[in-house]
Amino acid sequence: MKTMGLRDLVLVRPRRFPDPQAEWRAASAKDLLRETLVADDLADAIADSVFVAGTTARARRMSWPLATPRTAAAELLGKARQGKVSILFGREADGLTNDELDMCHLHLRIPASEAYGSLNLAMSVQILCYELRLAELEGEGDEVPGAKWDRPPASKQEVEQLFEHCETLVTKLNFLPVEHHRVVMRRIRRLMSRIEPDVTEVSMLRGLLSAIEKQLKNAGKT
Amino acid sequence: MKTMGLRDLVLVRPRRFPDPQAEWRAASAKDLLRETLVADDLADAIADSVFVAGTTARARRMSWPLATPRTAAAELLGKARQGKVSILFGREADGLTNDELDMCHLHLRIPASEAYGSLNLAMSVQILCYELRLAELEGEGDEVPGAKWDRPPASKQEVEQLFEHCETLVTKLNFLPVEHHRVVMRRIRRLMSRIEPDVTEVSMLRGLLSAIEKQLKNAGKT
Repeated sequence: MKTMGLRDLVLVRPRRFPDPQAEWRAASAKDLLRETLVADDLADAIADSVFVAGTTARARRMSWPLATPRTAAAELLGKARQGKVSILFGREADGLTNDELDMCHLHLRIPASEAYGSLNLAMSVQILCYELRLAELEGEGDEVPGAKWDRPPASKQEVEQLFEHCETLVTKLNFLPVEHHRVVMRRIRRLMSRIEPDVTEVSMLRGLLSAIEKQLKNAGKT
Repeated sequence: MKTMGLRDLVLVRPRRFPDPQAEWRAASAKDLLRETLVADDLADAIADSVFVAGTTARARRMSWPLATPRTAAAELLGKARQGKVSILFGREADGLTNDELDMCHLHLRIPASEAYGSLNLAMSVQILCYELRLAELEGEGDEVPGAKWDRPPASKQEVEQLFEHCETLVTKLNFLPVEHHRVVMRRIRRLMSRIEPDVTEVSMLRGLLSAIEKQLKNAGKT
């Protein structure tokens, strides 16, 4: 990370941290390790991010916006000019879970060999950091569409609250067969993630949901 | 290497090889490790290469053709369609020596952070392999100028012999102050490396050198 000009590392429930081996391996990047944050929960870790990208090696059943590190690098830099951008990496052995990937606006896949596509975690991090560094050097992201949006983008937490509000309503409406609930909610989550609402849009949609809830409540009463 | 579709690893005077730790770390790339060649000497290792690129983190006193992995990847692939291309990596602690870098047609520098530019060997290898993989996927190198040269390129060994022939002659001519000999020979080496002669050109130049030597000998006799 440091060799590529990146600084902010957050670890979610690390097995060991601080760890003497990590210190030793960090060589002249110990400063970065000292500033590393530890989070109890992925949602907390990304709560204040305006854009979240997650790395994955597998194809998934439900398609999700997907890019390579190279094609995404300029977009990620452009977003980082608007607010905090997080890039998620999974566990060494099995990567990010589907639930974790569902929390991402974008999935990133390194175009590794079909014959042997399993990169070490450290190698994946290196490639992502390298692409961001090169995009930065090329001045990419400066003129990415959306970079001059009139309203600030909503944070991950605000969009999550919108989603939860929506899920509460969908549950209340009780129109979905139980077995479909989860997949429909995932599709709604994906949609909300993809539209990347700004703060005004989120509060507008929250207002709409509240209005619907209120109407339902009143209807129930009559 | 294997995740990026590369296979041919040559180790020059490794401290330990085979090594149980290397086996263990190779995970599902043990096949590549089993096919790894060991050379006693760098010149032997690259003797049959038509193009040699060497990685370096430092600026050097004598400028040499220099590129980033990204800008060089297509060229390296194009050359690999003509013959064997070698990419040299140095020691973990201090990289390639100046003499080793002098054996390269091209130097490669990863554009790391100015504040902390010291990449691990493994990370440098990953970035190079990654750039080659992406260039391959983009079909680059197929139409690189020179890829359809009418004569096969000379091997590193043939060019080296040409250089040695030339050095012998320069020494015989004895026109250089001793303190300039080394720097002049390095400049000649760099020039020969850069022109990337084909086999016909090498034999032509060798013929010319031989003719000069013969004339000198005859002149000495007279």
